[in-house]
Amino acid sequence: MTSLNRRSFLAATAAAVGSISTCVQAKAHDPMPKKWDEEFDVIVIGSGFAGLAAATEAKNQGAGNVIVLEKMPSPGGNSTINGGILSVPGGKFQKDLGIKDSPELLAEDMIREGMGYNYPEKVKTTTQAALPTYEWLVKEIGVEFVDGKVGQEGGHSVPRHVYTSNGLGSGIVNKQLEYAKKIGVPVRLRCYVEEIIRDSDGRVKGVKVRNGYRFGKPDSGKVQYLKAKKAVVLCHGGFGADVKFRMKFDPKLTEKFDTTNQPGATSELWREASRIGCNMIQTDWIQCGPWNSPEEKGMGIALYFAQGAAATMGVWVNCSTGKRFVNELANRKVRADAVINNNNKGQPCIALSDQNAVDLSINQTRKGILDKMLDKKVVHKFDTLEALAAQYKIPLDALKKTIADYNAALAKGSGDEMGRPFTKNAKPIGTGPWYCSLLSPKVHHCMGGIETNQLGQAIDISTDKPIPGLYAAGESTGGVHGAVRLGSCATLDCLVNGRIAGANAAKEKPWS
Amino acid sequence: MTSLNRRSFLAATAAAVGSISTCVQAKAHDPMPKKWDEEFDVIVIGSGFAGLAAATEAKNQGAGNVIVLEKMPSPGGNSTINGGILSVPGGKFQKDLGIKDSPELLAEDMIREGMGYNYPEKVKTTTQAALPTYEWLVKEIGVEFVDGKVGQEGGHSVPRHVYTSNGLGSGIVNKQLEYAKKIGVPVRLRCYVEEIIRDSDGRVKGVKVRNGYRFGKPDSGKVQYLKAKKAVVLCHGGFGADVKFRMKFDPKLTEKFDTTNQPGATSELWREASRIGCNMIQTDWIQCGPWNSPEEKGMGIALYFAQGAAATMGVWVNCSTGKRFVNELANRKVRADAVINNNNKGQPCIALSDQNAVDLSINQTRKGILDKMLDKKVVHKFDTLEALAAQYKIPLDALKKTIADYNAALAKGSGDEMGRPFTKNAKPIGTGPWYCSLLSPKVHHCMGGIETNQLGQAIDISTDKPIPGLYAAGESTGGVHGAVRLGSCATLDCLVNGRIAGANAAKEKPWS
Repeated sequence: MTSLNRRSFLAATAAAVGSISTCVQAKAHDPMPKKWDEEFDVIVIGSGFAGLAAATEAKNQGAGNVIVLEKMPSPGGNSTINGGILSVPGGKFQKDLGIKDSPELLAEDMIREGMGYNYPEKVKTTTQAALPTYEWLVKEIGVEFVDGKVGQEGGHSVPRHVYTSNGLGSGIVNKQLEYAKKIGVPVRLRCYVEEIIRDSDGRVKGVKVRNGYRFGKPDSGKVQYLKAKKAVVLCHGGFGADVKFRMKFDPKLTEKFDTTNQPGATSELWREASRIGCNMIQTDWIQCGPWNSPEEKGMGIALYFAQGAAATMGVWVNCSTGKRFVNELANRKVRADAVINNNNKGQPCIALSDQNAVDLSINQTRKGILDKMLDKKVVHKFDTLEALAAQYKIPLDALKKTIADYNAALAKGSGDEMGRPFTKNAKPIGTGPWYCSLLSPKVHHCMGGIETNQLGQAIDISTDKPIPGLYAAGESTGGVHGAVRLGSCATLDCLVNGRIAGANAAKEKPWS
Repeated sequence: MTSLNRRSFLAATAAAVGSISTCVQAKAHDPMPKKWDEEFDVIVIGSGFAGLAAATEAKNQGAGNVIVLEKMPSPGGNSTINGGILSVPGGKFQKDLGIKDSPELLAEDMIREGMGYNYPEKVKTTTQAALPTYEWLVKEIGVEFVDGKVGQEGGHSVPRHVYTSNGLGSGIVNKQLEYAKKIGVPVRLRCYVEEIIRDSDGRVKGVKVRNGYRFGKPDSGKVQYLKAKKAVVLCHGGFGADVKFRMKFDPKLTEKFDTTNQPGATSELWREASRIGCNMIQTDWIQCGPWNSPEEKGMGIALYFAQGAAATMGVWVNCSTGKRFVNELANRKVRADAVINNNNKGQPCIALSDQNAVDLSINQTRKGILDKMLDKKVVHKFDTLEALAAQYKIPLDALKKTIADYNAALAKGSGDEMGRPFTKNAKPIGTGPWYCSLLSPKVHHCMGGIETNQLGQAIDISTDKPIPGLYAAGESTGGVHGAVRLGSCATLDCLVNGRIAGANAAKEKPWS
């Protein structure tokens, strides 16, 4: 795969397509507008990684008149605020470091961690396209990555992700925006898609929009009808910021829980895709980080303490009971659910460690960060366990017993009561001062979404056939990540499958 | 709650309803038929627990002309072949045995095991109605339960379920059918619902059916349009037998895996409900029993060995590696997924125990069953471990090491490598003869489905408002069981929420 260049990769993927013109009689149908206000060949909804990749690829593949619609006042969605890491198995930096890796190994990691809910062919396409996608980003889009640096996120078997040079997803998005401008693909901001219009012949023919929309004001903007002669491509992202909608799928995720998402990560197009006959898969797999603190916005920094020090050599404690409540090294899903269930019963939870644990972990691996956490008041320091317990209203005797039990099991080498493996070099807990952070998971990523085939076509719930004129890619779709998405794989998914959807949308036979 | 009789329970639930006539403008709409072939007040689809409960309740609440439609040639669906157990917290038999229980405790069990994916208000309604539902079954429907016997399924904190006297769900369904006949509710067999008809005013107005349908022949039967003046109630059950559809939501559940469901448990009305604007929640939570054997049909009996003997005092082994692969006492979901993932890699798995384990478990609790399993050739006996390994092509050295490691951990009292707690009285594994059963999970229950409110009204994906004229109950709906359904709770859900849906459907204002 490493020798695949951009064109051969896309050509391989699109080989079966030819001119796409399957016509499926829809049971549902919308009335057509009396007149179309504007006409495009391809309309892409959403201006994150996937939307920009789809639109530019469509343009390059000869789509003609392509536009990107974005409801928010600025482009990029969650992609701009993402961490700017990208899995590149078999990349140059890995080779320089002597790390053996392959698309197959990444696929294995994704499917194992995704609990086998992943669509195997989607995973294969996505992972095999990783290296060509990286090369495309560097050579064609002009993205800069940190030279020689390779990182490893949880669930990956080897270090394999590269870092954008500005440390954010905007390092990619901004270059994609420049590139779109250069090749003549406009991004229309504050353009909210209220309806996807599907005709009685089964074809998607355009969208009803509100131009000049102001986020949060459903009736704002001017209603217009935009005709899509070839296709509409849905790259509208997830719904992590939409409390009401996410609670339909996971009722635990109440308004008490913050999100790492931008405010525009809402559900309107999830509802609309379903309404016009898309099949929505795995919508209830909504990823939360278990280690976040409610005392800071977004992802924050307290997680480095909660994970690095407390989860490995301290304990996580339910303040109402003074007891541990989960294996602190279980997967994110298990731990986040455990914290959320306690929080929803009105029981705060903390990550707790002593000085030893901090010295043996983050004070070595992330020098200086503990001071930042203390300054920011997201990690708190106490001279005595008594003072800490008093502050968080933890029953002191129960807390002491929890620590004593852990220490006894550690000394005996017997099984930890929560099934956690003992960390190498772990010492008995007991040397103050003490540190803790409050735990409150934050909604991060929607694994599920629209069912699409290998060409990025949205599948009709009634017929199992593609909906003519409708494509989707990125977080708005399901099947790539299964139950649990791995870090550095969302960017990859969005870019690869955005390009595939765009390339195939360009090949649709115009409906008039 | 124990003093609630049938009428007061339903009155309480339906209090907020009055005459139901909310009208929601639908974005989607179907063409109306030129003429309706027949007219009913309430049309119930599906003749299992939920459908029959809905139809008879609707009739009793003054619905007028009520009919039940069933696509199969015999009534009852999965309900007739179900195990005939019903959770009754606070029932007489429990009291006689001194077992303390309450609807609140059952609710707590359901939500804990459902991983908090349950809709709390649905769980409350369902559990609080358990005792009145039991009394209704006995006094009004004439169902006979085994006197004085109370059982306990996995995940329940106390023994709380009663048994029908014939040991099957048919002990309830047959009485419901007699009762329906008595009060004038016909059940029309071989009547397949091809479309639910939703008008442009948002209201569901009837169904398109094929009368005289032959299962598996989509074009069989005579097309007719049935008008539903008050409501359509969807009680069509799950899709466990529909391999293609279930693989959309959980791609692991390939055709390799059998199902405990009847062949009619297919997806047509899941697709149709989605098409007309229902919100489908938690569809990818599909329950499989981890302990089933592929060498017998349906639920079978090998599970008593795999669970009772091997999972507690033996080991589960991947035949390709000779190694254990899961905590044999983890929850059903974790274990079923682990076996399925191995099976899908072409790696058979077995449950394995020695004579000691069998003698200390099923030979005491289920006398005689081991002989039955051996006769039926679903559990297999070997004089030596060598012979067993040879039969299943298990690497012998690896298998011996697996057993030695288990024994060493047991002797030391140190942690089991898979995190399984050691069973009280467990002995080292090593005393032949040896026993084993093949493992192959079977698809059992769909936890997800149509989103409904507390009145059983189906919710519109676009508006979050009820779809006028459309109700749903039972396995076709989501929200009651969350991620994991407990044994003896499906029957309860179907009966309680079937009755609620039927009672409220009866109160709908006719549309003409």
